Amino acid sequence: MIVTLANAKGGVGKSTAAIHIATYFQTLAPTLLVDSDHVRAALAWSRRGKLPFTVVDENQQAKAMRERRYDHIVFDTPGSIDEQGLRELAAGCDLMVVPTVPETSATDGLLYTLSRLQGKADNFRVLLNRVKHNRPQEAIELRAALTEMGVKVFATEIPDLVAFDKASAQGIPVSEVDDRRAARAWEAFETLGEEIRHG
Amino acid sequence: MIVTLANAKGGVGKSTAAIHIATYFQTLAPTLLVDSDHVRAALAWSRRGKLPFTVVDENQQAKAMRERRYDHIVFDTPGSIDEQGLRELAAGCDLMVVPTVPETSATDGLLYTLSRLQGKADNFRVLLNRVKHNRPQEAIELRAALTEMGVKVFATEIPDLVAFDKASAQGIPVSEVDDRRAARAWEAFETLGEEIRHG
Repeated sequence: MIVTLANAKGGVGKSTAAIHIATYFQTLAPTLLVDSDHVRAALAWSRRGKLPFTVVDENQQAKAMRERRYDHIVFDTPGSIDEQGLRELAAGCDLMVVPTVPETSATDGLLYTLSRLQGKADNFRVLLNRVKHNRPQEAIELRAALTEMGVKVFATEIPDLVAFDKASAQGIPVSEVDDRRAARAWEAFETLGEEIRHG
Repeated sequence: MIVTLANAKGGVGKSTAAIHIATYFQTLAPTLLVDSDHVRAALAWSRRGKLPFTVVDENQQAKAMRERRYDHIVFDTPGSIDEQGLRELAAGCDLMVVPTVPETSATDGLLYTLSRLQGKADNFRVLLNRVKHNRPQEAIELRAALTEMGVKVFATEIPDLVAFDKASAQGIPVSEVDDRRAARAWEAFETLGEEIRHG
């Protein structure tokens, strides 16, 4: 499966989501993460430690795919993409995951992204990311507003947990982090992975 | 083989070279041209008519490679690439072809590109492109200067011929153009293709 993480607004946890979606798919079959974000956050993550799948920048994609067969490919993309770019990204994947954080500033960027995709692609779904345990109302309201707009939203939400920062600092997936909430963090991505696979 | 056309300076005939190198490789085995130049000149060329190989933008690369196996991949790249981008492009291919036109304005851009590559990559070679029949001296001098600098230059030079414009306008390779110099234009790329293949 080809899964692309995209949002015209940056800073919404795209790379963290890309890494854990790839971690999930790697439990099923060989998975390649292509980091085409200029910031190279996913590549930096992999270099700080060890991830269970292959990570390359977009320029090494052809060589990586010549070397071996990957059943699943996950793309992390730049935080600033124009309208044509968004449509091409959607056309180039099976499912586009649009992560967003339930905060006003992030919602503005999300609405821009959705307005560029709606009517031109239908293989995208919004992921409510970094949902705060003590402020569930914002996620509930955002989900209701998106559903009202006819936008598909994953049932799974990703909680805002420090375990993800620890995973990044150590260069590993959250499933391998020594933290009392690491299991909950990983469980969210396992559930999301199932949702991605089974539509 | 993975061949990448690149030059930090645009307007040096990168897309024309990419299309004809791909045309050459397609005579040998299935070839994919990935147009990652934002201007999408190679894609536009293919849409005006019919090219003998597959052309996709960089976002469709993974899907194209999932659909079928390509023995050869040719990349057309943006006209503005920074230092990191140039090095990653070189690392991601077997051979980087740096086309340049023997004119002072183009040479400045070429020198920038070469200064960013030298010492960091050795799989690149300069292609003297659009060489004017009635002004051979400029190409001779540029070749001598590059050789002096230790830069590898293809023995083959591509002549500046109207047949290439006709090919672009009709959306076909120059080999199929009805023009009395089309055969000479195509022969130059056949010779270049042999040079690329055999090092």
